[in-house]
Amino acid sequence: MNRLQATYRVRCEAADIERRAAALAVEQSIEMPPAAVRDARLLDAVLGRVEAIAPDGPAHFRVRLGLALETTGGEAGQLMNMLFGNCSLQPEVELLDVDLPDAALARFGGPRFGIAGLRELCGAPRRPLTCSALKPQGSTPEALADLAARLAAAGIDIVKDDHGLADQDAAPFARRVDAVQRAIDAVNRSTGRRCVYAPSLGGGPRRLREQIRLAREAGVGMLMLAPMVSGMGALQELRE
Amino acid sequence: MNRLQATYRVRCEAADIERRAAALAVEQSIEMPPAAVRDARLLDAVLGRVEAIAPDGPAHFRVRLGLALETTGGEAGQLMNMLFGNCSLQPEVELLDVDLPDAALARFGGPRFGIAGLRELCGAPRRPLTCSALKPQGSTPEALADLAARLAAAGIDIVKDDHGLADQDAAPFARRVDAVQRAIDAVNRSTGRRCVYAPSLGGGPRRLREQIRLAREAGVGMLMLAPMVSGMGALQELRE
Repeated sequence: MNRLQATYRVRCEAADIERRAAALAVEQSIEMPPAAVRDARLLDAVLGRVEAIAPDGPAHFRVRLGLALETTGGEAGQLMNMLFGNCSLQPEVELLDVDLPDAALARFGGPRFGIAGLRELCGAPRRPLTCSALKPQGSTPEALADLAARLAAAGIDIVKDDHGLADQDAAPFARRVDAVQRAIDAVNRSTGRRCVYAPSLGGGPRRLREQIRLAREAGVGMLMLAPMVSGMGALQELRE
Repeated sequence: MNRLQATYRVRCEAADIERRAAALAVEQSIEMPPAAVRDARLLDAVLGRVEAIAPDGPAHFRVRLGLALETTGGEAGQLMNMLFGNCSLQPEVELLDVDLPDAALARFGGPRFGIAGLRELCGAPRRPLTCSALKPQGSTPEALADLAARLAAAGIDIVKDDHGLADQDAAPFARRVDAVQRAIDAVNRSTGRRCVYAPSLGGGPRRLREQIRLAREAGVGMLMLAPMVSGMGALQELRE
């Protein structure tokens, strides 16, 4: 198996499912009539393949497509583009699952550090880890830093920005991250623990680059990024 | 009106809708019990407000919330974060619509050039514009450049990358964009028309920056970016 295996649920009558599945394989890959493709390599290596069709309740089928790994370019946003693709506009088709071939794991291998890295960062090799959020949005950097210090002093391992915190006037990223990290550093010095602050990144490439620079300068040990807001590609690059 | 007006459809019994709407206003803004907020400014200026509740079919209501503009930080990804927010996890709530106050339009004002800019770029002040796509994915840069030249010679105004084209080995962004732009430039010189090529950007901040640089060097006049893949923030920064 050297293709992405993408499983879709398709609403279709039994008499039509083979034709419907074949059309789906075209639409999720070359997006044009195979008869009009002049390059034989494309039909062999790039055109999607129907790998399996199985019934899945009345007038529904599970269709597994084999999608060429080369169509992703090794880029996480493009992986989403291929998996969802044009059938995301078709109400009778639903993406259920995807299996990545081993060859894909070099580029789409998941977390860089994983749970072992989190445990090492927090100095907690065995016990449960704890996490809490700085809130509410609209608070001043000083108020958030004060809350962060209380959480760190209480033994919380990871203090994260609440999901509503961004680069707002009430607590701009630069001032908030600096104030919160200083407050947590001070508590860590007195307790000997390793509470970690995880601020939330946001914005386009220019803002992200600036925020990463500011976070590094402040000595931040962890970053958060919402991939459905800032892009899967940004998450992938951050991991690298 | 100086708040975002976000309208949600909520499945709820009539007896509960006032309480449910108030809880939604909390969850879409400060995300914590108002009684626990110590800063009076937040309750006045940041806590979401229920602006209107109206029936919308059996056991459904339209709830219009006023969300503080300051919560967006003027950033398009954060605007999505605020509008969808935690209620995107609640099956009984659906975001239907949003109205932006005039004060929001400085940051969320829409296209930079708009249809007038497209017409000027293509040298077509009045007639309908035409557009076609380079495909299929998996083709070589030379094959795509040949197709682009045919489309330009046939009088197409805008030739765009098909949505499956990214930075793949078969036609890496740098080689594809250079080859296609050269082919279209050559046709434009012979026809005197102004066919424009619009390649598709993709990836995280590092890849996007590199692709924009390559496109500028090649003399590309238009760029495409899928905001739900690469992020609304990237689209907003590209516009700026």
